[in-house]
Amino acid sequence: MIARSGTVAEPSGNDGVSRRRLLIVASTGVGSVVAGAALAETLADVPPREPGAPLSGHSERSQYVKLSRIPEAGPGMRNVDPNNAINSKTPLNKLVGAVTPTDLHYERSHAGVPDLDPAKHRLLIHGKVRKPLVLTVDDLEAMPSVSRVHFIECTGNGWENWKKADPTLTVQNTHGLVSTNEWTGVPLRFLIDLVGKDRGSTWMLAEGGDGAAVDRSIPLTDEIMDEAIVAYGQNGEPLRPAHGFPIRLIMPGFEGNLHIKWLRRLKFGDQPWMTRWETARYTQLLPDGKARQFQLRMETNSVITSPSGMMEIRPGYNRITGLAWSGHGKIAKVEVSTDAGKTWKAAQLNYPVLPKAQSRFQMDWEWNGTPAAIVSRSTDERGNVQPDRKTFVDRVGTNALFHYHAQQTWIIDSAGKVRNALA
Amino acid sequence: MIARSGTVAEPSGNDGVSRRRLLIVASTGVGSVVAGAALAETLADVPPREPGAPLSGHSERSQYVKLSRIPEAGPGMRNVDPNNAINSKTPLNKLVGAVTPTDLHYERSHAGVPDLDPAKHRLLIHGKVRKPLVLTVDDLEAMPSVSRVHFIECTGNGWENWKKADPTLTVQNTHGLVSTNEWTGVPLRFLIDLVGKDRGSTWMLAEGGDGAAVDRSIPLTDEIMDEAIVAYGQNGEPLRPAHGFPIRLIMPGFEGNLHIKWLRRLKFGDQPWMTRWETARYTQLLPDGKARQFQLRMETNSVITSPSGMMEIRPGYNRITGLAWSGHGKIAKVEVSTDAGKTWKAAQLNYPVLPKAQSRFQMDWEWNGTPAAIVSRSTDERGNVQPDRKTFVDRVGTNALFHYHAQQTWIIDSAGKVRNALA
Repeated sequence: MIARSGTVAEPSGNDGVSRRRLLIVASTGVGSVVAGAALAETLADVPPREPGAPLSGHSERSQYVKLSRIPEAGPGMRNVDPNNAINSKTPLNKLVGAVTPTDLHYERSHAGVPDLDPAKHRLLIHGKVRKPLVLTVDDLEAMPSVSRVHFIECTGNGWENWKKADPTLTVQNTHGLVSTNEWTGVPLRFLIDLVGKDRGSTWMLAEGGDGAAVDRSIPLTDEIMDEAIVAYGQNGEPLRPAHGFPIRLIMPGFEGNLHIKWLRRLKFGDQPWMTRWETARYTQLLPDGKARQFQLRMETNSVITSPSGMMEIRPGYNRITGLAWSGHGKIAKVEVSTDAGKTWKAAQLNYPVLPKAQSRFQMDWEWNGTPAAIVSRSTDERGNVQPDRKTFVDRVGTNALFHYHAQQTWIIDSAGKVRNALA
Repeated sequence: MIARSGTVAEPSGNDGVSRRRLLIVASTGVGSVVAGAALAETLADVPPREPGAPLSGHSERSQYVKLSRIPEAGPGMRNVDPNNAINSKTPLNKLVGAVTPTDLHYERSHAGVPDLDPAKHRLLIHGKVRKPLVLTVDDLEAMPSVSRVHFIECTGNGWENWKKADPTLTVQNTHGLVSTNEWTGVPLRFLIDLVGKDRGSTWMLAEGGDGAAVDRSIPLTDEIMDEAIVAYGQNGEPLRPAHGFPIRLIMPGFEGNLHIKWLRRLKFGDQPWMTRWETARYTQLLPDGKARQFQLRMETNSVITSPSGMMEIRPGYNRITGLAWSGHGKIAKVEVSTDAGKTWKAAQLNYPVLPKAQSRFQMDWEWNGTPAAIVSRSTDERGNVQPDRKTFVDRVGTNALFHYHAQQTWIIDSAGKVRNALA
């Protein structure tokens, strides 16, 4: 029955799972069964009805809801002067659904957050093109647009668990550099056609208007030309300054640092520009000491967000839920293990599953109170499977800083304390 | 080419349209063509790069972005003391994409906005059930969940244009009582199974915890039992107080007032309760003086959000864009007329088109500078077509207050001024 109503509607065939859920929940003391006179007593401490606050221009959060990112200065550098912070992480442990609240989308910046005047901002498009152009923000907003729900992930996400596992880390610390928003803007393909890109222009330089002038060389594959967006909108409104206002590049499925914020220049050419951001930074140091450049696509990944680091659970029914994403396309499957990867069961995926967006998964679990280790493993529509940590480290080594996407294990002790662990 | 990249990707076959777009844009002075020395000059007034503000816990809006709802006391009562406001309208004219920013989702309240303590809040489920229950918010959050993108629309949306057309109205005034968010919560079907609804329970009373104690009788059709949600999440975070914190009912496709906010009771029975909200209020006065009760489903609707009331446009290329929605399911088609409904052309629908959610549409338009009247017409997947105003009024009359969904016409004079008009 449940299978028709929700998560749950597509794909079908989950009746068994849902029936089991129902029985688990019903048998383990969720809610209070009440009847007759007991009702009045049970409800006695519900506050009386009162007139509320006046209606307003903006709906703010409840005084009872505390949500905030954590600014950090780097791996393991959590309690810092905000002036020294280089990123600010999304509280995945406190969120629901798939969309990240706009003001909680993760931040990563190399020179702070400029608040640019859109009336003065310009986008220069030049290089190997027939007709170089300078566009205003108004010009871009007048063009045909698309709106797409996509994740952005910092290539350093997961960093903290590469070499050791600090048991005090939450999922906000370990995985808070990935977020999902609806992005609106002009398809890159439209701008390419507008300036008349040379057939030989196989690379594009994208440059930001921030103090650090972050710029990256982007290979013009069909996939990128078809999917990239010069965005001015985020979750229905103009971009916020931390996320690139007035315009940024959206590169669905690729490294966060390619989604150039405060975008002010696109240059076309026939080879990469070898900027400092792709030589000194964002290269991958391999086990043999060589550095790999232009490892651009974000991998198949997932993490359990609840229960997760520093939470506590009780024996009985617990709902395991988390997020899965892949730079290759849609998530096809998420499996969850509660015995450290020995056995796996398919989790339910929330509908709709969108390409290159985070997808919410969930699974019922009856915890018997003995030590456990919970872990998720995602598979995308191209068949890429998220590796366990040993396989990943055997392949990539521990010299590198980026593209960590091994399975995340949370261990649970007999007291119900949930803690970060490497395997 | 463009057709592969965006809006645009599904359905395909829009190459002709996109090519035409490109030519229109390219030929009508969007952007400045630049080369050589002119480049430096053109970019001379771009502000220099400077270090930005420190990273933060929340990404606030830019100082250059002004977005706000308008609290109103009723039709035509726009400049009111907020204490007397009964609704607060979404600025559709300033938004992009399909998702409404959380703090700008429209408000409608009968006793202001309570900020309830979630630790004290209870949901009572009782009546013709096998096992009445009192649930805490924690109980609900531990249950299987779904996340769905749906519109909510006040049944009074459109009201202002029923009898006359104030030419100073914006689309925020005429249509600002509809919004779209991602809602997360427990499927109603799960709760129904949990309490063991009697086979004879064909109605459900939902009651809010606000000062006005809004309560409505809801017929338990399969569609409603399959799709309704007891929601605690909104765009990834806990509901905000104006939108029902800590829990509200989501009734996809049905009148906004059925999505009971601050939900505290669900009662099952075999007939409607005839509350004051379905006798004194929210009934539809027909042309013959009789009142229709329980007209619950929201109709097939659409509106052009740009250009729209009180905007100004210039001759040449203009992008027409707007939103379409239907309580019956997905939007199948939106057509746009620029000659007051004499001729129509298919607009492009942004992908993905989700059921019972707002969908963004857009169309190119080359305005020749002579007076025009632009209007949109939506068709949903069940074949329901949004009526023109005359057809609608002929059928429903002008006694009623609710469910206005006639086509919205914006007239444009030779100076480019866009104004509200009845036809």
